[in-house]
Amino acid sequence: MEDNRDLLEEYRSSIDNVDAALIHLLAERFRITHQVGVYKAENGLPAEDKEREAEQVKRMRELAEDAGIDPVFSEKFLRFIIEEVIRHHVEIDTDTSSD
Amino acid sequence: MEDNRDLLEEYRSSIDNVDAALIHLLAERFRITHQVGVYKAENGLPAEDKEREAEQVKRMRELAEDAGIDPVFSEKFLRFIIEEVIRHHVEIDTDTSSD
Repeated sequence: MEDNRDLLEEYRSSIDNVDAALIHLLAERFRITHQVGVYKAENGLPAEDKEREAEQVKRMRELAEDAGIDPVFSEKFLRFIIEEVIRHHVEIDTDTSSD
Repeated sequence: MEDNRDLLEEYRSSIDNVDAALIHLLAERFRITHQVGVYKAENGLPAEDKEREAEQVKRMRELAEDAGIDPVFSEKFLRFIIEEVIRHHVEIDTDTSSD
């Protein structure tokens, strides 16, 4: 039988693996949203899209409920990511405008 | 050739897939940290562990750099998740104490 200290280390190794996966998924997400940002800037579209955002929030809350996590947290999480994306988009837009 | 509207829809489908994966990974992470929380409460350990947290931040920043995303964002992201975990741990601790 493992002692408790080993058990805590086991949990932490799993958490570290999940965190590495999260970072790589976020990298992929930002890669795609960068393409969206370029597209929006080229087509003169605003960085924010409230209708799309509302759909995403609704979907994330449903996914969270299915996965057994707090839907309120999932909404906060999505808004946290979207804020970063919008920050990137505004930068792309500024870069484009400054040409 | 796809028109631009289809291209935007393609990007958004990919983003939606990544978001579903993120939610499921977060669910797994919370499942593990719940076990850590129970362990900590049973062993009278505080919910927060500053040394472990500092190691996690350092590791996340390195992973972020490798993955090509902003290390500052990765740190903010980790702290955002840890805040939620600590909120869960405090709840577990309160439940245990109220027995």
